[in-house]
Amino acid sequence: MSDISPLAPKGGFPKLPVIDGVRFAAVEAGVKYQGRLDVMLVEIAEGSAIAGTFTRSKTRAAPVLWCQENLATGLRAGGAAILVNSGNANAFTGNNGMNGVEVTAGAVAETLGINPRNVFVASTGVIGEPLPAERITSKMNALRDGLRDTNAEDAARAIMTTDTYAKGAKASVELGGVTVQIAGFAKGSGMIAPDMATMLVFVFTDAKINQDVLQQIVSGATVTTFNSITVDSDTSTSDSLVVTATGKAAMDEVTSITDPRAVAFGDALHGVMLELAHLVVRDGEGATKFIEITVNGAESDAAAKIVGLSIANSPLVKTAFAGEDPNWGRIVMAIGKAGEAADRDKLSIWFGDILVADKGWVSPDYREEDGADYMKGQDLNVTVDLGVGDGSATVWTCDLTHQYITINADYRS
Amino acid sequence: MSDISPLAPKGGFPKLPVIDGVRFAAVEAGVKYQGRLDVMLVEIAEGSAIAGTFTRSKTRAAPVLWCQENLATGLRAGGAAILVNSGNANAFTGNNGMNGVEVTAGAVAETLGINPRNVFVASTGVIGEPLPAERITSKMNALRDGLRDTNAEDAARAIMTTDTYAKGAKASVELGGVTVQIAGFAKGSGMIAPDMATMLVFVFTDAKINQDVLQQIVSGATVTTFNSITVDSDTSTSDSLVVTATGKAAMDEVTSITDPRAVAFGDALHGVMLELAHLVVRDGEGATKFIEITVNGAESDAAAKIVGLSIANSPLVKTAFAGEDPNWGRIVMAIGKAGEAADRDKLSIWFGDILVADKGWVSPDYREEDGADYMKGQDLNVTVDLGVGDGSATVWTCDLTHQYITINADYRS
Repeated sequence: MSDISPLAPKGGFPKLPVIDGVRFAAVEAGVKYQGRLDVMLVEIAEGSAIAGTFTRSKTRAAPVLWCQENLATGLRAGGAAILVNSGNANAFTGNNGMNGVEVTAGAVAETLGINPRNVFVASTGVIGEPLPAERITSKMNALRDGLRDTNAEDAARAIMTTDTYAKGAKASVELGGVTVQIAGFAKGSGMIAPDMATMLVFVFTDAKINQDVLQQIVSGATVTTFNSITVDSDTSTSDSLVVTATGKAAMDEVTSITDPRAVAFGDALHGVMLELAHLVVRDGEGATKFIEITVNGAESDAAAKIVGLSIANSPLVKTAFAGEDPNWGRIVMAIGKAGEAADRDKLSIWFGDILVADKGWVSPDYREEDGADYMKGQDLNVTVDLGVGDGSATVWTCDLTHQYITINADYRS
Repeated sequence: MSDISPLAPKGGFPKLPVIDGVRFAAVEAGVKYQGRLDVMLVEIAEGSAIAGTFTRSKTRAAPVLWCQENLATGLRAGGAAILVNSGNANAFTGNNGMNGVEVTAGAVAETLGINPRNVFVASTGVIGEPLPAERITSKMNALRDGLRDTNAEDAARAIMTTDTYAKGAKASVELGGVTVQIAGFAKGSGMIAPDMATMLVFVFTDAKINQDVLQQIVSGATVTTFNSITVDSDTSTSDSLVVTATGKAAMDEVTSITDPRAVAFGDALHGVMLELAHLVVRDGEGATKFIEITVNGAESDAAAKIVGLSIANSPLVKTAFAGEDPNWGRIVMAIGKAGEAADRDKLSIWFGDILVADKGWVSPDYREEDGADYMKGQDLNVTVDLGVGDGSATVWTCDLTHQYITINADYRS
């Protein structure tokens, strides 16, 4: 395990609230790693709603295909569960992949007495090797016996791969006079290599929300959180986000997206998802800078996001940040290559509050020393105004350092 | 200047043929660099056809806008010229940018007695600083007096920035019984930072081809040459390719794209452009591997190219090559994220002649040692068969190394 990222939050893993209807267990199963937790199980009470978003990769791993099928066909009667292992991604393993899913989901179903199609699975680790399913299924009784409503942190640790710290976030929100809790955890540090660092996110709440409304809220919140971050522009075959609402809170069910409680819950959930998304970026492989990029004045919000990600994914922009070089010319380049409408002579760029470029040229008040001083900070903001419309978006990334090369080139898998 | 790239051709700069109707000169003007050639002038005889392709950046530099306008409105009567400086890109310099173009093009026009709109200009170097036009215009007489038909290599050296070697290529081809010559040179080593490493390409021939046919041939050849290479996925604001046909060869003019001579000439020009494109990749910043990626079995040629570039631009694929790691899982990942049709269970991958992955899983005959041995080579081939159609494309790239980070992060501009 590498040293903890310099961008890690100082307080360590947060104390997550208990979510009524959810219990966690984690064990050492030796899937690949030895001497550490590597399998986690979540037991979910009957009557819960479950929503999810997944990688758009065309080479999705078997566990992702399984979960998407579960959601598409609807939850069956009875309880549900989530089973996750680290050390083996069960990806690109041909027909063997779905066999591994069916065997492990089946074992969970039998152990907990639930329908196997109510078992959500995720795997992260090396690819192309068959999942050693028996190492997982042999731990079913230990997992069942270990289920506790206070075990979320162990579960968060069990799913780590190249992560340098466990990532958790929480919120509470009042919905029509009833306070509900939200607790979530995530793993991920490259964005994302299939053999090392898939992003997995699990969020739980006791709010009572029906399946359709929950899915709409989750899909919407994903756009501006997990789909607005990038470490290295690479997308895993296994990225998964699963949100569970147990409905144990003493409230009437939310059945409409326009219910004010849906809006309030959506805001709180968005906050938890954004915090987890930022924690993933802060654990980006080799990262020494956390960078927020806001693009205003684009033709549309979608155009603004494309420009923002073009900046965030540019190797030349990312290496400039690593070098603490206020190289605004590379930002101009990345805006230009994005392909969205831009007008060089209306373009403005700020580093923090410092106006660097204004209307197509370096600002007359800009001093290179000010930009260089600003770049020495650890959390940095870049704002771009394209000057051609009202669209805006914010994305988050980290810098590209020697350590990234060391992690990904010097290491032989 | 860095050490010469390990991927540089062993023979040095080729002896280029004289092209009747074209003369070259290069001088030390001290635009930014001292003690080296940094401005070059090409004099082009009356009656020549000139075609070009340029960066698609939305933040194109003033010289690019000027050249595109020249071509769109057609060549004026009389001779033509190309003026290029290194050390200053004349990019993102507001209104000052076009002033610099007009002053320098005007000086060339006056010195050679030609129309200023027949003067093509390109600039490469730092951005955001006004072009010191007087350092260039003060050298006009020296440039004119230095014009020689044998001076192409000096011209090629004058336009270098972070390049570690000058890049030239040539061909001769028989068109209807008449042998014509093609000679070209290029610069570029990042792909491409606006402050350092724009790609500029100039090719000359004595073939007699009309303007429209020449432009069609050049546009077509660009797709599978300069638009099929990538070093770091970044696109300059200044990339320019200008092809000049002087028509001095004793042949009837080619006036149709379907003329067999147009096909023969197009093949020869394509060869020169491809060689120059490869020379740019071989000088990629920090490169230690030259990588050819061929994608077959895609839905279309365009889809194949998108998949090929997704592989070629993936930081995780490029760092795996740097580490000599036969990490085919990262290639699966990059195929998946490209967004084009792919079927995991029909996918095959080769490293050179070694079948690595077959029909969605690692090939039963594949041995990791064979892949690792193959990766130790300097020129590498990856072939992918998507198994969903007949589309194919080939792209070229290099690896992503510590030296790339050193060049782009450790250096403060």
